[in-house]
Amino acid sequence: MPDHGPTPERILELGQGFWAAKALLSATTLGVFTELDRNGPQTVEELERTIGLHPRSSQDFLDALVALDLLDRDHYEYRNTPEAAAFLVEGKPTSFVGWFEMVNDRLYPFWGDLETALQTGRPQNELDDAQTHPFEGVIYTDDEILEQFVGAMTSFSMAAADVIAHEFPWADHDSVVDLGTSEGVVPTRIAEVNDHVHAIGADLPRIERYFQDYVAESPAADRIEFRTVDFFADETLPAADVYILGHILHDWSHDETRAILSKVFEAVAPGGAVVVYGTMIDEERREATLPLLMSLNMLIETPAGSDYTAGECIEWLHQAGFEGGEATPLPGPETMVVARK
Amino acid sequence: MPDHGPTPERILELGQGFWAAKALLSATTLGVFTELDRNGPQTVEELERTIGLHPRSSQDFLDALVALDLLDRDHYEYRNTPEAAAFLVEGKPTSFVGWFEMVNDRLYPFWGDLETALQTGRPQNELDDAQTHPFEGVIYTDDEILEQFVGAMTSFSMAAADVIAHEFPWADHDSVVDLGTSEGVVPTRIAEVNDHVHAIGADLPRIERYFQDYVAESPAADRIEFRTVDFFADETLPAADVYILGHILHDWSHDETRAILSKVFEAVAPGGAVVVYGTMIDEERREATLPLLMSLNMLIETPAGSDYTAGECIEWLHQAGFEGGEATPLPGPETMVVARK
Repeated sequence: MPDHGPTPERILELGQGFWAAKALLSATTLGVFTELDRNGPQTVEELERTIGLHPRSSQDFLDALVALDLLDRDHYEYRNTPEAAAFLVEGKPTSFVGWFEMVNDRLYPFWGDLETALQTGRPQNELDDAQTHPFEGVIYTDDEILEQFVGAMTSFSMAAADVIAHEFPWADHDSVVDLGTSEGVVPTRIAEVNDHVHAIGADLPRIERYFQDYVAESPAADRIEFRTVDFFADETLPAADVYILGHILHDWSHDETRAILSKVFEAVAPGGAVVVYGTMIDEERREATLPLLMSLNMLIETPAGSDYTAGECIEWLHQAGFEGGEATPLPGPETMVVARK
Repeated sequence: MPDHGPTPERILELGQGFWAAKALLSATTLGVFTELDRNGPQTVEELERTIGLHPRSSQDFLDALVALDLLDRDHYEYRNTPEAAAFLVEGKPTSFVGWFEMVNDRLYPFWGDLETALQTGRPQNELDDAQTHPFEGVIYTDDEILEQFVGAMTSFSMAAADVIAHEFPWADHDSVVDLGTSEGVVPTRIAEVNDHVHAIGADLPRIERYFQDYVAESPAADRIEFRTVDFFADETLPAADVYILGHILHDWSHDETRAILSKVFEAVAPGGAVVVYGTMIDEERREATLPLLMSLNMLIETPAGSDYTAGECIEWLHQAGFEGGEATPLPGPETMVVARK
């Protein structure tokens, strides 16, 4: 009997990981989890009708979702697992549906050209060579893409917003600017949890209507304000005790990042603080799979962005004038760095 | 402090699983593992030159491969992990490079249209509606696709070929036909390990040259023969003690499968056996993630194929006239079913 040596299971699972990803993304995009959440458990035949699935592969598709622990099956009826119910149902506060819709429509096809990106160092999205950044060139000029993008950012910032709203020492601070706020989930959660805080969401002009729509539903709406900001074009940024930058710095080159942080330092009140959060690479660059892959996503999506370690982030903050700097893990594959002025 | 409830890590890892997949597929296609195997450990700068990686994201790419346990990094030099060395280096007997090249070039983009496949029940590959099957319509008429496809099939059948060659009771049998043999890895391994066995690879005429090239390198080449077979058009199949069908039955509808197995039964000598192997769904249809997803791959690739359980396979074999039927797990996510005549 031969020694079979290492077996190929893990490599096959990894290299064909886009199969499981597309099963999840298709189920999310087709509305399987939202349908089961709204109308209760359903059989294969019922889901064929409600979702519009062809009978040829409906059972294999649904049973694959069972094997992936996204659905449970009981007496021939499918229902959401608690994880799917929390993150894959439209309209829930913890929903990632907006994010995954964007992932499915834009990122999946763009990542098909990863080899070209690695060989050229150039983005592989809607950008052509004449355009400097998708925010100016594409995302912010196409209503449909922009609406999906701001929804995706809300999905992706929800868990961090909740932790920052509850765990940051807001008792010591009265005002906050969330820079690149998108729909404003972060200032909204902070204002809702902390009665005394005046929360400002700052972003480009085209974002305001999405922000106002989102914030209007909050009981704290009277303490949440939008400010038009262009952090490259504007000489100064709005003053506040605390600045928050979530999922912002990895969009830009290191020089651009330093320029942003210098303006942030000037805008923060003495005794104030800055909070930077997002995916961050581990210091040894050996463990943080999703942040390292997110950095490749920044290659696909931006002309010069990349992810970074908490140590690099703290170094940039010190160069800008901030002091201290502690890194704390957030729920999800993210890290939060806090420094003081 | 709020109860954060379920956290989104697993869902994000799953839904963005195409990032890790494309990192592996790009590294394989660009030749990173083959280069490190042939020329030894290299630094980022060396790999930029040997592989043609742009410096912008080369380190993030290589460190992502470290985080995925495909590379090790030591003193700034990258080397293959044992798993990568076994399965991702071109030309090794256990190599999956051919498979992953096909996965990267064909399956990744095709799976982008999974929603359409699920809604229509129609393949989403090079087939158009007028064509009945990729083997006749596309794969077997395009030299480049065909060469990649037969290499992929060899990758995917290597581990099973080794087990079947060693563990099947060949002492009791003198001849074998591997039906749909592709390059002939299965008859080659059987003939090499079992001196007395006459091994026949049967496939469509266009496959013969790939088979002859592959078999020519075997020390057992004089006991390995190619036979032209079309298992639908031909009235009878070549006689043999044992028939093997690997990765064949999931290409076809259940009616077509039954038609194939009836002809196989007629061709097997009394006292002989049939071996069916490939991905198989667990009987409860709850656990076998890769086989369930492989069944969706058959939706993407064929007009009527799908995966099946070992129980369904044994039922078809009984309907064809075979007796018994034991299912045994193979290395990798595969199962082997053996029945007797």
